[in-house]
Amino acid sequence: MAFEMDERLAGSSHFIEDWGLCRVSLKNDKNWPWLYLVPMRDGVSEIHELSPEDCALLADEIAFAGAAIKKLYNADKINTAAFGNMVPQLHIHVFGRYKTDAAWPGAVWSVQTAEIPYTVDEKNTEIQKLKNCFAEMRGDKTACQQ
Amino acid sequence: MAFEMDERLAGSSHFIEDWGLCRVSLKNDKNWPWLYLVPMRDGVSEIHELSPEDCALLADEIAFAGAAIKKLYNADKINTAAFGNMVPQLHIHVFGRYKTDAAWPGAVWSVQTAEIPYTVDEKNTEIQKLKNCFAEMRGDKTACQQ
Repeated sequence: MAFEMDERLAGSSHFIEDWGLCRVSLKNDKNWPWLYLVPMRDGVSEIHELSPEDCALLADEIAFAGAAIKKLYNADKINTAAFGNMVPQLHIHVFGRYKTDAAWPGAVWSVQTAEIPYTVDEKNTEIQKLKNCFAEMRGDKTACQQ
Repeated sequence: MAFEMDERLAGSSHFIEDWGLCRVSLKNDKNWPWLYLVPMRDGVSEIHELSPEDCALLADEIAFAGAAIKKLYNADKINTAAFGNMVPQLHIHVFGRYKTDAAWPGAVWSVQTAEIPYTVDEKNTEIQKLKNCFAEMRGDKTACQQ
């Protein structure tokens, strides 16, 4: 059976692509460049419930996502978090922070910020930029030459 | 030169022990069972700045810390976060959450909670419990039989 992403995660983000372990999506909020990484493993809520192999893969994909956000959006700092207090399906937030953003230097959760959804065009543009960035970082010449 | 932990991290926590990659300490706040994991690598601020080997080790140690907190403190959920907006030295927060805690189900950063420091006796007790738990989980028979 195909992996199913929790509807609250799917409903608050736009699918980008699947990696070796994680489904990667863009949080539908223009306040910050923000990715969800969701390990495609059923019934896993905690990082320590992953197999050692998946755990190493997760670290690699978190690092990759952070490096991409840093590179593409010129973020001042990458923030990474796995809570899951509301949505038990294991998901990791990886997002860029700026010294000028509304919550800096606090956690984004320390301020109430209204979400700003992407328009359809904006969403399509960001997803393509992210896909190209990921491909370039992976050394995928075909994608780079497009 | 020996690794030096940022004074703000060292000053807000109690040293427990060094693992393969991380210095592990107990945040000096009884509100939550809370560990700091600080990779003993100079000049690293982001997860993606670690070598691939260190990155895999970090994932392993984050998972181990989470499993220990779950086991020892019977936490309802493990929360994990790496921000570093104020203290650039890479450090990972791994802590236990409870359905009855002051911030549940929100992020702990969404509420203002006064820190409750451990007394010296309490601190010593918790550190010993954590050391024993880590040793037991590592299958260290000597420590288990104490």
